[in-house]
This record gives sequence, C-alpha cells and structure tokens, in this order.
Amino acid sequence: MRERLAQFAAARDWGPFHTSKNLAAALSVEAGELLEIFQWLTPEQAASVMSDPDSAHRVRDEVADVLAYLLQFCTAVGVDPLTALAAKIERNELRFPVPGAARDVNSDVGDQPV
Amino acid sequence: MRERLAQFAAARDWGPFHTSKNLAAALSVEAGELLEIFQWLTPEQAASVMSDPDSAHRVRDEVADVLAYLLQFCTAVGVDPLTALAAKIERNELRFPVPGAARDVNSDVGDQPV
Amino acid sequence: MRERLAQFAAARDWGPFHTSKNLAAALSVEAGELLEIFQWLTPEQAASVMSDPDSAHRVRDEVADVLAYLLQFCTAVGVDPLTALAAKIERNELRFPVPGAARDVNSDVGDQPV
Amino acid sequence: MRERLAQFAAARDWGPFHTSKNLAAALSVEAGELLEIFQWLTPEQAASVMSDPDSAHRVRDEVADVLAYLLQFCTAVGVDPLTALAAKIERNELRFPVPGAARDVNSDVGDQPV
Repeated sequence: MRERLAQFAAARDWGPFHTSKNLAAALSVEAGELLEIFQWLTPEQAASVMSDPDSAHRVRDEVADVLAYLLQFCTAVGVDPLTALAAKIERNELRFPVPGAARDVNSDVGDQPV
Repeated sequence: MRERLAQFAAARDWGPFHTSKNLAAALSVEAGELLEIFQWLTPEQAASVMSDPDSAHRVRDEVADVLAYLLQFCTAVGVDPLTALAAKIERNELRFPVPGAARDVNSDVGDQPV
Repeated sequence: MRERLAQFAAARDWGPFHTSKNLAAALSVEAGELLEIFQWLTPEQAASVMSDPDSAHRVRDEVADVLAYLLQFCTAVGVDPLTALAAKIERNELRFPVPGAARDVNSDVGDQPV
Repeated sequence: MRERLAQFAAARDWGPFHTSKNLAAALSVEAGELLEIFQWLTPEQAASVMSDPDSAHRVRDEVADVLAYLLQFCTAVGVDPLTALAAKIERNELRFPVPGAARDVNSDVGDQPV
C-alpha cells in the first residue's frame, strides 16, 4: 500500500511538496476534517454516524486521507508504523498494568495512553 | 494489531471513553503532537529530524499514537482503513490522471489529494 | 496586546521562526492541546471542567496560547482579526437568517457557521 | 464582539450544540483549516500568501472562524482571553528572560513559549 501511494505521488511530481513537515501538517489537517464530522454531534448521534450513507462515505474518505498521509509521512522519515506501535504498546503494558484499582477519570484528563 | 489494541483497552475498562467522537478528537490531538515536533523547523532541519535520537524517539512515539487511535476509531465505526484507502486511491487515479499538464501550485493550495 | 507580544518575541530573536506558516502550525497545535483537556470527558464532565483548579488553570493556559499565536499570525499576515470577524458575521447573518425553519442537525454536520 | 456572537448563536438556537467540548473541537477544526492554506507552501510562497486575493480572503475567513470559536469557547467556560494571555506573558517573562545566552534551536523543538 505504501508503495502504491509512493508511485501515485511520484507519477504526479509531488515529491518536492511531500517533506516530512508538510506531511505532518497535512496529516493534522485531515484528522481535523475527520473530527469535523463529529464536532456538533451528541454521543448518541455520533454512535449512529455510519447509518447515514453520506456521513459514512465522508468518514471512510477522511480515514483514507489520514492513513494516506500517515503512511507517506512514515516513508519520508523512514519509520515503520506497525513496529512503532508494537513498541509503544509494550511500553504501555508496563506503565498501565491491567490490575484492578478503580480508575479516576479526572486524573486521566488528556493523559490516557493508547 | 487492532485486536491487540482492543484487548489492551478492554482489559483497562476504557470502552466507555472510546466513543467514535472521542477517538476522532484524540486522533486529531495526537496528529497535533506529531506536528509540534516540526512546527519551528526549517525544511532543512525537518529533513534531518531523525538524526537526533530524542527527536527520532518522539516521532516514532507520536506515529504510534496516531496509528493506535486511527485503528481504534476504525474499530469503533466499523471501517476497514486499508479498504477505504484503496477505494480513495482508485477515485483519485481518475480525478488526477498522470499525464503532463503542468501543475499550478497556487491553484492547489490546500486541495492536493493523497 | 499584539504589540506586547511582538516586543516579547522580538526581544528573544524569535522573528525568523515566526513565519505565517509556522504560526499557523503552532496555532493548530495549541488548539489541539486545548481539545486534549476535553477529549475523554462526557458532556456533563466537560460542563464542570472549570470547577477543578488544575483543569481550570490548564484551560486558561491553553486559551492564552491559542490567542497568542492567533495574534502573532495576524501580525505576520497583516490581518486585523476583529475586522475579519465582523465581516464574517455580516456575511453569515445574510446566509443564516434568524427566522424559523426547523434546523436539521444531520444536514449541518461539520457545516455550522460561527 | 462576544455579545454579538452570543446573540447571533442564541437567535439561531445553537446553544445546545455549543458546549465547551464541542467548541474546543470546532476551534481545533478551524485552526486546521487555516493551516490547510499553508500546508504545501514553501516558506517563500507562504510569505506572499496575502498577495493573492483568493488566498487572502480564505485567510481572513479562517482567522474569523478561529477567533469566533475561541470567543464562544471562552464565554462557555467563563474565561477572559485577554486576562489569560496577560497572565501567561507575565509567567513567560520570568521563564524566558531576555538576556543573551545563544538559543539552541534543537533544544526548543516544540517547546517554544508564546
């Protein structure tokens, strides 16, 4: 998939624009467009967003954009995203052991790991 | 990988927080953190960001976060990200044929497809 | 306030970093940090975020960052933000007249004007 | 200006959508749209973005959106943005005194204060 994206971009001479910085900006912009679909929805409305064909199409379209720029960014910086994720999960399994202490939502604001 | 993430989250009772809306927000936040690494860099500095071990670690860490929330979002809405991307590339190959008409950067501001 | 910010930045030789593009990126990053405070909160928890002193401090801090970068961006591109907002409100008052046609939330997804 | 925005929104029954969390998301989305204008531009192209009438209009329009949501967010949480910014500048003047130690760009990645 990353190769196909690279060919697609190379065939159109986009290389010079696709610096790591520009791709990081584009990734952030596309993630914002995905969020835009949800920004005014109540939790209940958000839960049924895929039952509307137009919204479902937009969601799939923005997911594709986010993934495309993430993969192109990774190619630009030479990072394998699945390896990076596996390494992070291992670190988090140490930091956030499963046990059972009740979670305190407030202490987690903005700090929940993946 | 998506299963492992789902197990990791389920074991920690994060299900109730991981609504599609919250995950879209988290994805956007993490994409912002990736961009933060690059925000003050010149194009030249950005090109060598991976040669500094600390910056390289931060990049891999944020890539992992973005991918993790993207996958969890996809699970929440029932979208297969690779299928969505393949469909988008096919649409774009029709919209942006390879040929040779000179591209006008200005007309493309903010509108470059993946 | 914009002058004070400009002096603050100039005294520290930040001019070369504070290009319009970098400031737009920084503004987006800071808006993400503000959103981060809310990303896992239910609507009810979000409504009482200011009753926790630590959260309240974070909110004020991120608001300050967003405003600071917005003002610095405006200085960099020569835009008066209040004039821009007044012009937009006038356009919207024409586009979205007050009357009474029932609003359809779904048709508004991601498209609500300010 | 904040009153006029509040009246504009209230007259259109948008109150229920304009929770602090939704407004923080909307602010982040609009900041992304502003960044979108710059994402593929070189530093040189970015510097002359206002000389193109269409781009200049887009910039003013997105600045207005960002400011509008920032002000509405501040109303929702009861924060005065100028007071918050003044407090932050005072803290930063202590943290980043003017003097002369050469700044090391790398040590500042992503950590430059306003």
